[in-house]
Amino acid sequence: MKIRRIELTKIIDFLDKKVIKVEGDISESFITNLAEVERVNEDTLDWINPAKQNKQEIAQNSKAKVLLVDDSIKPIPGKVLIHVRNPKVSLAEIGNEFFVDKIIPSIHPTAIIDPDAKIGKDCCIGPYAVIGKAVLGENCIIDSNVRIYDDVVMGHDCVVKAGAVLGGAGFGYERDEKGNKFRFPQVGQLIMGDFVEVGSNTCIDRGALADTVIGDYTKINNLCHIAHNNKIGKNVTITGCVNISGSNIIDDNVWIAPNSSIRGWVHIGEGATVGMGAVVVKNIPSHETWVGNPANKLEKKK
Amino acid sequence: MKIRRIELTKIIDFLDKKVIKVEGDISESFITNLAEVERVNEDTLDWINPAKQNKQEIAQNSKAKVLLVDDSIKPIPGKVLIHVRNPKVSLAEIGNEFFVDKIIPSIHPTAIIDPDAKIGKDCCIGPYAVIGKAVLGENCIIDSNVRIYDDVVMGHDCVVKAGAVLGGAGFGYERDEKGNKFRFPQVGQLIMGDFVEVGSNTCIDRGALADTVIGDYTKINNLCHIAHNNKIGKNVTITGCVNISGSNIIDDNVWIAPNSSIRGWVHIGEGATVGMGAVVVKNIPSHETWVGNPANKLEKKK
Amino acid sequence: MKIRRIELTKIIDFLDKKVIKVEGDISESFITNLAEVERVNEDTLDWINPAKQNKQEIAQNSKAKVLLVDDSIKPIPGKVLIHVRNPKVSLAEIGNEFFVDKIIPSIHPTAIIDPDAKIGKDCCIGPYAVIGKAVLGENCIIDSNVRIYDDVVMGHDCVVKAGAVLGGAGFGYERDEKGNKFRFPQVGQLIMGDFVEVGSNTCIDRGALADTVIGDYTKINNLCHIAHNNKIGKNVTITGCVNISGSNIIDDNVWIAPNSSIRGWVHIGEGATVGMGAVVVKNIPSHETWVGNPANKLEKKK
Repeated sequence: MKIRRIELTKIIDFLDKKVIKVEGDISESFITNLAEVERVNEDTLDWINPAKQNKQEIAQNSKAKVLLVDDSIKPIPGKVLIHVRNPKVSLAEIGNEFFVDKIIPSIHPTAIIDPDAKIGKDCCIGPYAVIGKAVLGENCIIDSNVRIYDDVVMGHDCVVKAGAVLGGAGFGYERDEKGNKFRFPQVGQLIMGDFVEVGSNTCIDRGALADTVIGDYTKINNLCHIAHNNKIGKNVTITGCVNISGSNIIDDNVWIAPNSSIRGWVHIGEGATVGMGAVVVKNIPSHETWVGNPANKLEKKK
Repeated sequence: MKIRRIELTKIIDFLDKKVIKVEGDISESFITNLAEVERVNEDTLDWINPAKQNKQEIAQNSKAKVLLVDDSIKPIPGKVLIHVRNPKVSLAEIGNEFFVDKIIPSIHPTAIIDPDAKIGKDCCIGPYAVIGKAVLGENCIIDSNVRIYDDVVMGHDCVVKAGAVLGGAGFGYERDEKGNKFRFPQVGQLIMGDFVEVGSNTCIDRGALADTVIGDYTKINNLCHIAHNNKIGKNVTITGCVNISGSNIIDDNVWIAPNSSIRGWVHIGEGATVGMGAVVVKNIPSHETWVGNPANKLEKKK
Repeated sequence: MKIRRIELTKIIDFLDKKVIKVEGDISESFITNLAEVERVNEDTLDWINPAKQNKQEIAQNSKAKVLLVDDSIKPIPGKVLIHVRNPKVSLAEIGNEFFVDKIIPSIHPTAIIDPDAKIGKDCCIGPYAVIGKAVLGENCIIDSNVRIYDDVVMGHDCVVKAGAVLGGAGFGYERDEKGNKFRFPQVGQLIMGDFVEVGSNTCIDRGALADTVIGDYTKINNLCHIAHNNKIGKNVTITGCVNISGSNIIDDNVWIAPNSSIRGWVHIGEGATVGMGAVVVKNIPSHETWVGNPANKLEKKK
């Protein structure tokens, strides 16, 4: 992790109206890093979880001098308390602003892009990426060795991590007169919204005759397989190693835990949760949690 | 999806002897696309499933003017009915012929191919593919960023999608005198038949001392792991995210559903089905369906 | 598999002090290959498993002339018996020495390596690998299309197979004031020990605020996902398609079977076994075996 000396006044300026109040002496104060239990020290920025019962005590005992806290924490001698509504969100914003390297828009000379592709401005396309007749919005980051096939349409501010494959032909087959399989035409598109993130080595197939659709702010982790014709909503969380077979409808704000499987042709309602390793073969109503193989509703107080 | 104006006479010529009869006025008729519930219109080619009870009614209500139907559908005023034995297969063949871009054989200048590799004629090898001392039959399509290690032998008309890795060293280890692991030599081959398809980012390891074998027309989806020494038959369907550990025997026409796991050293009989997420730790007899963790036979009318 | 004529005297010299005794006529003797049930013949080197009850009979019936055996096997007319403590380990060492091609240290001209990266001597870096500001020890093998992000530190004698992605940003998100997800800063490192092996298309994320750590001799198979902040010990075996969510502690010598899932924030004790397809949501004590969904302790004699 990078050590950088950032003056506290800069941090407070950056947070701007999110700061409810500041207590303690901020002159000469700085942070060098975000705190973490393994390496918190006097110069790292710590945050106190508002949900903890003994949060005042935790704040007093932190090795860090500067703390992001909610408005219930009382002054602590020798410490600077930055009161904000959501300490963890503010920590994240400070980290992204000051401790994560900014991406510089550029197209690496080894990226191979079809002349008919349309690439929005300020995109960053990494080495050895291969992009067909696709459309990318502004500010997208496409990492190394990514393959984007023809007919993919991606919104703005998307991130695609190394080795991901978007818009490949789906897994649909018919049998010829001798009983041998041949591919059913896969001629639909893959349509992605804005702020979508796709993890490393994840594969999302194009539609067969209809389209595959991924909504805004949906985040997909590494090594997932999303088959043809899925309609996935907004702010959906798809964690690692998830298999989503074809033609499902997955509504907004669904959470899909690692290594679970969704059968195809099912509907998962808004805000539902699919448990880790769940094998989903039926529709899941909104806001329910389903677990197990086969998956069933998780009852409270089992 | 591409919109293309294809004259109906061309379609009928292409289907040739598969056409049982044509009803309706085909002069001036054309299609622009394959129909799909999301975007069927007057100019798209629709098909009527022979298995549906109310198929005559479905045909009458289709928005499309031209329909692929079986021989039981009666004439419908204003529509062209193309009677064929298998409407969906005919639709697929028309789509592949007229609406899927043809691959032009070529070897991309950035593909790195060992001088001792043998590449059959009319292959298409994509950018940043890396191929060792392997043998490829005619008409194979190897997409971008694929890695084919030494000693892979592939038949003709195979397709390997982006990022797949074929013939890597398998996961076999011994422990040395200090108890530390070192790799057991992996010196067998990977032998693939004809018309095999391998999905994106799928990995198939070479044999350890024996060979890994994949039969003709076997289709493998994205993100599967097939370990060393497996003997997989013909027309086997291996769907997404499947894990097949080492040294199994999988007979012809087996169907392996997504995210299932096969333990190693088991035998799966001809035409058997492994259910989604199944954890297979025993032999499966021919034509049985096994599901669950651990997998057991699925009984009818449970 | 390569056929090579290796004189038996060379083999015996190589094994050196591991040879307890040799019986039979070694003059003019040679081997051409390692034996395997599919292709054992007079010239292949066979080994007899000391654990088999009828091992003397198996040895007598082997088609091979030269056998690696433990010290209990009695002389067999016409055969050469090389007595060693561990016949399979000796077979593996002979295979690695004489039948596996040696890697020649080199950096492929198409590998893209950040000027601030530190690459140890005698590494082999394959085509189209992309390496950021990382540190690699001596004798590492990085195969084609591998992506190593900034802040990865790798020990010596590591192997990373094709398409693997190391040190990517982990899957941590917060929600902004509108309820939309944005990435929590992922600024920890990925620290790998010596003799670590990483399979094809496997992804190991960097830490969020803490580090992800992988111990010496730990072997990871293809298509695994290892999330941020995991602390994984030495000589751990992580087989194919395993999902390890964030912030677990996994002690030395743990065995994790294929396609299993570990929830995050759990502790798996030394020498424990996670069964195939197991869904682990609790701590596992040392030396226990857990299986099922959700995983529970496997009782002997169930």
